Amino acid sequence: MDLRYHIPLDRATLRAHGVPDDWPMGVADRVRFHELDTLGHVNNAAYLTWFENFRVHYTTAYGLTRGRPQLDGLVLRALNVDYRASLRLGEDYIVTGRTTQMRNTSFTMEYGVFSGDLKVLSTAVLVLVEADGTTKRPIPEEVRRAFAERDGAQAA
Amino acid sequence: MDLRYHIPLDRATLRAHGVPDDWPMGVADRVRFHELDTLGHVNNAAYLTWFENFRVHYTTAYGLTRGRPQLDGLVLRALNVDYRASLRLGEDYIVTGRTTQMRNTSFTMEYGVFSGDLKVLSTAVLVLVEADGTTKRPIPEEVRRAFAERDGAQAA
Amino acid sequence: MDLRYHIPLDRATLRAHGVPDDWPMGVADRVRFHELDTLGHVNNAAYLTWFENFRVHYTTAYGLTRGRPQLDGLVLRALNVDYRASLRLGEDYIVTGRTTQMRNTSFTMEYGVFSGDLKVLSTAVLVLVEADGTTKRPIPEEVRRAFAERDGAQAA
Amino acid sequence: MDLRYHIPLDRATLRAHGVPDDWPMGVADRVRFHELDTLGHVNNAAYLTWFENFRVHYTTAYGLTRGRPQLDGLVLRALNVDYRASLRLGEDYIVTGRTTQMRNTSFTMEYGVFSGDLKVLSTAVLVLVEADGTTKRPIPEEVRRAFAERDGAQAA
Repeated sequence: MDLRYHIPLDRATLRAHGVPDDWPMGVADRVRFHELDTLGHVNNAAYLTWFENFRVHYTTAYGLTRGRPQLDGLVLRALNVDYRASLRLGEDYIVTGRTTQMRNTSFTMEYGVFSGDLKVLSTAVLVLVEADGTTKRPIPEEVRRAFAERDGAQAA
Repeated sequence: MDLRYHIPLDRATLRAHGVPDDWPMGVADRVRFHELDTLGHVNNAAYLTWFENFRVHYTTAYGLTRGRPQLDGLVLRALNVDYRASLRLGEDYIVTGRTTQMRNTSFTMEYGVFSGDLKVLSTAVLVLVEADGTTKRPIPEEVRRAFAERDGAQAA
Repeated sequence: MDLRYHIPLDRATLRAHGVPDDWPMGVADRVRFHELDTLGHVNNAAYLTWFENFRVHYTTAYGLTRGRPQLDGLVLRALNVDYRASLRLGEDYIVTGRTTQMRNTSFTMEYGVFSGDLKVLSTAVLVLVEADGTTKRPIPEEVRRAFAERDGAQAA
Repeated sequence: MDLRYHIPLDRATLRAHGVPDDWPMGVADRVRFHELDTLGHVNNAAYLTWFENFRVHYTTAYGLTRGRPQLDGLVLRALNVDYRASLRLGEDYIVTGRTTQMRNTSFTMEYGVFSGDLKVLSTAVLVLVEADGTTKRPIPEEVRRAFAERDGAQAA
C-alpha cells in the first residue's frame, strides 16, 4: 500500500498502515544513512529529532503556533523514551502523536514510532513560554478544546 | 504536481519538476526542523548528509554496492560545495547526482539541490577501498559501463 | 579554577566544581555551536550524545568493554530526561554518571549535567547483547563488583 | 605534552604540537562517539561543525562579531574540503584557521585539522550580511587590519 511522506495522515490512513485507532495523527518518513550508529541501527538521539519534527506538523494543525514561528515558545521539560526495537536503513516509519494531559501552561504528549508494529514509545512534557524563554504562558482556549476533542486529552 | 519522496526519480519526472535533462537521477525529500541553524536556514553540514543519503540510492541503482553493505568500501576524498541559496523549514527539494569522471579506483560525482531552481551545487571525489579501509580497489567493469552510458562519465 | 576536559574526573575534582559527592565520575566539555537550536539553547537531542560519549569513558573505566570495541554490545533500552535548565554557547559543563541498579543482563544508570548547579538529570536502562545484537549476555562478575563498590549499585 | 582544549592557542603552542608557523590560531578538541560513521571514522559532515565552531572563536578574537550574536551576519557561500586521512574515537585534534583573501563584503578562510600531521584541509568563502540575511555589508576597517596583520590576508 502506498505510503505518503511528510504530510499529516488521518486516522483512516493510519489504521490502513497498522497504527491503532487511538492515535489521531501521524507523519511518515524513511530512515536516512546519517541516522545510523556504528551497528547499523538508528541512533538514540535521531528519534528525538523525529518527535521534534512531528511537533511542527502537530502544533500547526492544532493552532498552537498561530502567529508564531514554528515551535517558538515551546520548551521540552521532560522526556521518556522506551526503545522496544531498532530501525534500519531505508525502513519506512510513521511517527504518531497525541496530547494526553493538559495543565494551565504545560501539556503531556505521547509519541509512537510504527514500522509494522510499535518500535518506540515516548512521553514528553512541554511548557509554553513567552519570548523571553522563561515566563510561562497559558494554553489558548481553542487549543485546549482541540486537545480534548481530537486527542481526548484530560485536564490535570 | 505531486512529488514522490525517497525513491529514485527518472529524467522525465525530474524535468517535470524543473530539473535540467542532464541529471539522470534524483531523490526528493523535505527540510526537517533539526536541520535548521539559528537563523532558520538549513545548516551547511546538513547538505552533506543529503548527498550521502543520495549515494545510497545511487550506488544501489548502479550496482556499486552489490554484495556489500550500503556505502561500505566507499570513501569521500574531496568535496566542493557552492551554496547559492538557502532552504527553509518544510521546503521540498530534489537531490540530483551523476558521475562525471572515472579513474581506475576513484570517480568524481556532481550533486545538485533543486527547489524551484538550483540552490546548491557540489562536486565530490570518491575512492573505492577494500575492507581494510585503505587498500584501493578498481571500479568494476559493469559499473564503469553504467557510469558512461547513463551519466556520460568520461574516463580520465 | 581550572577545569580539565575529556578525561574522567574523580570525586575530589568534581566536588571542587560543585558536583555532589554521590557522583563517582564525571567528564567535562564545552557547548559547541552546532548543538544550539534556533533559540540559542542546547537542543534536546545533543544531551543524548553527551551521555553516550560519557558511556565510552565509563565502560572503559569499569572494564565493561574489555576486548570489545567501544560501546559494542551495549544497547539503550529506555531513557528518561529531566531538562531543568538550558545551556548556552561556550558554557562549560560536566557530565556525571553512575550505575544505580543491576540485573542479570541489564543495568540502570543515572546521568547529570552540571554547570554551576544541576541542569539536566537523566536515567537510562542499558542491556548487554552478543554480537548478533539481540541475544542478551550477563554482566561480568568483576564489572558487577565495580558497579557495587564504586557506585553503590544495588542488585535488583 | 599537555594540550588545552576549547581555548584559542597561539603560534608558539601550536608549533609545540606540530602545527606549522603559518597558522596564527588553533583550537583543540577530541573526537566524540556520535561523530563516527558506521566504519568508525569521523563522518564527513562532522568536520564542518568543527570549522563552524572554530569560527566562533576566530570571529570573536578578530572583532568581527562585536555587538552581534556569534556568527550572526556571516553566511557560508562556498566550501572546499580535502579529506587526507581519517580520525578515530578519542583522538585529539587541533582545528586551525586563517584568512587568506578579503574582498569588500566577503573573505576566504583556510582551515586545517591537525593530529600529528595535517589530516584535513579546507577552504571557505564567507559573506557578511545584514540582519535581513541577504543585503551584503562591508568588512569593518579594523577587522581588515587584523586579517592583514595577523594572518597576512591579501586584499583581492
